[in-house]
Amino acid sequence: MSHYLGIDLGGTNIKAGVVSEDRRILAHGSVQTHGSAGIEAVINTMIEVGRSVTRQAGLKLDQIRAVGIGAPGTINLATGTIISMPNLVGWRQVPLRNRVVEALGRPAVLENDANAAAFGEFWAGAGRDEAIRHMVMLTLGTGIGTGLICDGRLIHGAYGAGGEGGHMIIQPGGRPCACGQFGCLEAYASATNTAHRAEEAIKSGEESVLVDSYHANGQELTAKEVFDAAAGGDDMAGRIIDETARYLGLACINICRFLDPQMIVFAGGMILAGEILFDRVRTAYASNRWHQMDTDHVRIVPAVLGNDAGLIGAAAVAWDADKTGRLRL
Amino acid sequence: MSHYLGIDLGGTNIKAGVVSEDRRILAHGSVQTHGSAGIEAVINTMIEVGRSVTRQAGLKLDQIRAVGIGAPGTINLATGTIISMPNLVGWRQVPLRNRVVEALGRPAVLENDANAAAFGEFWAGAGRDEAIRHMVMLTLGTGIGTGLICDGRLIHGAYGAGGEGGHMIIQPGGRPCACGQFGCLEAYASATNTAHRAEEAIKSGEESVLVDSYHANGQELTAKEVFDAAAGGDDMAGRIIDETARYLGLACINICRFLDPQMIVFAGGMILAGEILFDRVRTAYASNRWHQMDTDHVRIVPAVLGNDAGLIGAAAVAWDADKTGRLRL
Repeated sequence: MSHYLGIDLGGTNIKAGVVSEDRRILAHGSVQTHGSAGIEAVINTMIEVGRSVTRQAGLKLDQIRAVGIGAPGTINLATGTIISMPNLVGWRQVPLRNRVVEALGRPAVLENDANAAAFGEFWAGAGRDEAIRHMVMLTLGTGIGTGLICDGRLIHGAYGAGGEGGHMIIQPGGRPCACGQFGCLEAYASATNTAHRAEEAIKSGEESVLVDSYHANGQELTAKEVFDAAAGGDDMAGRIIDETARYLGLACINICRFLDPQMIVFAGGMILAGEILFDRVRTAYASNRWHQMDTDHVRIVPAVLGNDAGLIGAAAVAWDADKTGRLRL
Repeated sequence: MSHYLGIDLGGTNIKAGVVSEDRRILAHGSVQTHGSAGIEAVINTMIEVGRSVTRQAGLKLDQIRAVGIGAPGTINLATGTIISMPNLVGWRQVPLRNRVVEALGRPAVLENDANAAAFGEFWAGAGRDEAIRHMVMLTLGTGIGTGLICDGRLIHGAYGAGGEGGHMIIQPGGRPCACGQFGCLEAYASATNTAHRAEEAIKSGEESVLVDSYHANGQELTAKEVFDAAAGGDDMAGRIIDETARYLGLACINICRFLDPQMIVFAGGMILAGEILFDRVRTAYASNRWHQMDTDHVRIVPAVLGNDAGLIGAAAVAWDADKTGRLRL
C-alpha cells in the first residue's frame, strides 16, 4: 500500500494530510499560513506540517511515495514553479516543488489548487467510481473555478490557462467581470455575484424580505441569505437564484458540447443550499434539449469532500503522477 | 518510411489517398458515393478506391501500415462502428472498421470526419509545426464543426459527443438552431446562417446592394455574396459579417478559457473571404481583454489543406493510432 502526502497552500491556512492508495486519510492537520512572515517562513511551515502529519500517520518520510502540493495562482507545471499568486504577497517565480523535494527528500508535484481539488473529487469523491473518466468540477465561491478532467487527465492547456470555465462568456456585453471581460459566467453565478445581484435589486427599489438585513449589514448580503429567502418564498430572491441556476445550466450545456463529461460536480459553500439549487440547475440544463444526441446521461451532482478536497486533491495529484510515471525527485 | 491510406466517406464523394509518414500525398482519387445504391455498394466502392490509390502510389497493400477512415455521423470509436449517419440513408450500427480490415487485410481506425479533418490540419496543415500541441479547428459551413486537440490528442468526450463547439450557447434565448437549442454559435456564424441573417434583414426592409440578387435567386443568398457586398462597402452586409465575426471572436474567447490552445484554425468555404473575415474575428477576440493572464499568444489562422483535409486527416488518424500503439487488425 503506497502513501501520499498532500499539502494544500491557501491564503489563510496550510492543510496537509497523508492519504493511502485506497483513498483513506490516515492523518491530517491545519495551521495558519501567516503569509506576512514571508516566503521562507511559509515554505518552512508547509514542510513542518507535512512532517507532522506523516508522524501522526505512524509513518517515516521514506514511506511516503510522493508529495502533492496544491497552490493558488499561476504555475509552471513542468518546473514546479509558482509564477505568481493572488493571495500571498511577493510570491513570484518561487521554485516550490524543488524546495519541498530538498526538505523532505521525496518526489513532489506542484498543481494549481482548483485543479487539485477537482482531481481529488474525481479520485476520492463524487467521481470516485472507476467508470467515471470524464468529469468537470465548478467551484462556486467569490469567483467560479473549474477543473476539467478528460479521460482521467486534467486539462491544463498550452500555457496553463485552460480550465478557466468561470470566464466563459455566457451573456455577450453583459455584467462586467473582475477579469476584464463582460458577461462571464462568474459575473452572474458565483456566490458573491448572486449576492451582488440581490443587492442591486434592492438598490433599484424591489421589495423583498431581504431589505432589512441588507440595510442592517452595511448594504451587503450573502448568497446564503438569498437562498434562505428564496426557500422561504421571497419572490425577488427566487428570481435571483432562478437566474443563477439558469446561467449554471447554460454553463453545463456548453461544458457538455465541448467535453461531453459523464458528471458535472458543483463545489463551494453555495452547494449547501442543496436541492433548491440543484433542482433548478438540472431543470435549466434540461430545458434546452439537444436533438443531435441523447445526452441525458450527464449527472449534475454536489461535491462530497468538503474542506478535505484540497489536501486529498494534492495527494491525488501525487498518486496520479506516480501511476503515470511522472514522478521526479 | 511508413505509408498510410486515408479514406474519407462523404455524402457526395468518397476520397482516398496514400500519405507518407513525412506528410506527403503520394496518390489520391475521388469517386461519387452513390449512397442510394446501399451500404454494401458504398463499402465496396470505398475499398475499391483504396486499392486503386495504393496501386497509383506504386505500393502493395502490405506496404500500407494502416488505414484511416473518416465518416460523418455518430461513431463508436472503440469498436469502429457507425452508429448513425446524417447524410446516408440506412446506415445504423455498421461495423465499417471491421469491414475495411477484412477486405484490405490491414489495421484500420474509424474517426468522425470533422475530427479527422482537424487532426489533418494539426498534423500536416496549419498546425504542422511540432511546437503546436494544442489546437482547435472550427469549420464554417452549413453548420459549424469543431475539432479539439489537447496535448496532441483529439478530445472525444465520454459518449463521443465532445468537440461540438458549434453548439455552445453564445446568446441565451437567441436564434433557434437546427439542433434544438437556442442561441448556438452555429445559429449565427455558420456560412448558411450568415446568409440567412442577410436574407432576414432584406425581408425586414433594409436597403442593400443584395436586394436584387436576393429576389433574382428565389429569396436566397450565399455567404459569399454577403462577404462580397461587404467588401464593396454595403452597410447592411458589413453589419451582418461584423456580427458573424463578433460571435466567432466570442467563441475563440470561450475556447481559450476552456482549452487554452496555441492556435485556432478556421476552415470551410467561408475562409475564402480572407482578411475581411480574419481581421474582424481577431479584433472581436482582442476587444474582450482578459486581465488574468496574457493570452495574446493564441494565433487565429485559416486552414491550408482545403479539399484534401479529409483524406489527409483520415491518414493522420491512422498515423496517430500507429504511433500511440492503438492499431488493431
